[in-house]
Amino acid sequence: MRILVTGGAGCIGTNLCNELRSRDHYVIACDLYNTERDNYIRCDVRNYRQMERVFKEYGPFDYVYHLAAEYGRWNGEAYYENLWQTNAIGTKHMIRFQEEHKFRMIFFSSAEVYGDYDGEMKETVMVENKISDTYQMNDYAISKWAGELMCLNSASMFGTETVRVRPVNCYGPQEEYTPYRGFIPKFVYCALHGRPYTVFKGHKRIIDFVEDSCRTFASIVDNFIPGEVYNVGGRPEWEMDIKDYSDLILKATGADESFVTYKEAEPFTTKVKKMDFSKAVRDLGHDPKVSPEEGIKRTVAWMKYLYRIK
Amino acid sequence: MRILVTGGAGCIGTNLCNELRSRDHYVIACDLYNTERDNYIRCDVRNYRQMERVFKEYGPFDYVYHLAAEYGRWNGEAYYENLWQTNAIGTKHMIRFQEEHKFRMIFFSSAEVYGDYDGEMKETVMVENKISDTYQMNDYAISKWAGELMCLNSASMFGTETVRVRPVNCYGPQEEYTPYRGFIPKFVYCALHGRPYTVFKGHKRIIDFVEDSCRTFASIVDNFIPGEVYNVGGRPEWEMDIKDYSDLILKATGADESFVTYKEAEPFTTKVKKMDFSKAVRDLGHDPKVSPEEGIKRTVAWMKYLYRIK
Repeated sequence: MRILVTGGAGCIGTNLCNELRSRDHYVIACDLYNTERDNYIRCDVRNYRQMERVFKEYGPFDYVYHLAAEYGRWNGEAYYENLWQTNAIGTKHMIRFQEEHKFRMIFFSSAEVYGDYDGEMKETVMVENKISDTYQMNDYAISKWAGELMCLNSASMFGTETVRVRPVNCYGPQEEYTPYRGFIPKFVYCALHGRPYTVFKGHKRIIDFVEDSCRTFASIVDNFIPGEVYNVGGRPEWEMDIKDYSDLILKATGADESFVTYKEAEPFTTKVKKMDFSKAVRDLGHDPKVSPEEGIKRTVAWMKYLYRIK
Repeated sequence: MRILVTGGAGCIGTNLCNELRSRDHYVIACDLYNTERDNYIRCDVRNYRQMERVFKEYGPFDYVYHLAAEYGRWNGEAYYENLWQTNAIGTKHMIRFQEEHKFRMIFFSSAEVYGDYDGEMKETVMVENKISDTYQMNDYAISKWAGELMCLNSASMFGTETVRVRPVNCYGPQEEYTPYRGFIPKFVYCALHGRPYTVFKGHKRIIDFVEDSCRTFASIVDNFIPGEVYNVGGRPEWEMDIKDYSDLILKATGADESFVTYKEAEPFTTKVKKMDFSKAVRDLGHDPKVSPEEGIKRTVAWMKYLYRIK
């Protein structure tokens, strides 16, 4: 298949391109910056003309994985201009190209769309539940739900075919540290650099190693069911307290626990995210293999390589 | 009170400024373009710096009516870049100023947030109902619901005080014709200019004369209940088929019915909007006085004046 991956230089994007290429697909990646990569083109999805050029020069595509997005809750609050331009306008641009070129799209949403819902997050929650159960709690989450609705509306009006995915705490190699990253890369980076970090207690999370998530994302083209939506994340039995992950990271890095400050639950943050991944298991053969312990070891090894730490 | 009205040169904005000034408030209006008006400043809410200047030069304000928005379903689909920049980024800018300056805000949402819901639209529908009952059907609607969620999140996180309003088919003088306007100004304009127009049958609507809506909007500052949200529209007993409104317009303009094409129900458009306005009646003394027949006469008179039709 001929496949375009927007946001193809990010953590999920890079791993997904590797996975798709290993399956003999022809893959073009695009992202914000120029890079040394092959089969890659610089394209900011906020700019229609730059996207049009990708389709003209590299298209047609059978599938587009649309990952390009401003990512993360606090990043979205601090850089909301970029967030809305990329996540809303950029996604709408993509949908317009989809309406014209008729490729199938995989839209990357987020488990953040479930807001502060404290029950088990099945995909049907965003259909059946009370609206106030899932009021999205930040612009990032709102923009991702907006993107999902745009996909649904385009499907009704123009017959476009899209599958939505809601990744949950995907982590691993290719995720460089910034202050707006999730807790795994943040803790690993700080532990490796002898920097202090804070662990909020009482938040449970399931993490999924990026290569495991990406095998599942790559399988979507083999069983593409238009209109479907999938939670994708780690094994439910891997659920742990964020402090437990920190402990694994301290062990894997050999860092001194004295750098860690423990605090009570973080405000405005979902305490427990209990997710149901059975639909991805059923339709896409979702089958995470890399345990948190193993995945954290590999993430530590990659970050040591990236930041030249001996 | 010292009051800022964004979008103050629009149809609702202009009428609202008149109403507020008649009640002896000090009112500054801002909008996209330079005008001849007094107590008016040009400001595009997409641009933070221009908004900051309004607050620096004319503030502080006790209340801000935030009306500035790209308006209308098909306008939003055709000009989605402007829509998201104004309705999402512009609103977030305003919320940031609110968090800093602590004014109270009245955020103008829309009955479009109810999507294709076919029951009675009470304000509680957006709390209690199934999520899929109100999937917003276009970017305009999505952006307005996004704005409401932003207001709710800022209230939780920073204690800002906002009242949301959801106007329904507000019409009347100061609403110039464009191809993206609602059915009343479109029909009046076409009837006055001998242009053909299409009436989709089977859509029921309640319309509210802009001066009636604006009395209610102006009363919000007299009974400001933070976190509240109000539907504002015409009397339920005024509900009519769109064809009935067209008939009133033909009568008021004396136009020839042969210019009108009648078609079956329009796709992707809510068939019936049955609204509940009892909360605005209770808290804000909402009391529409101008019947559709009278309001259409006055709208026709204003459009004849505007377009110099004898």
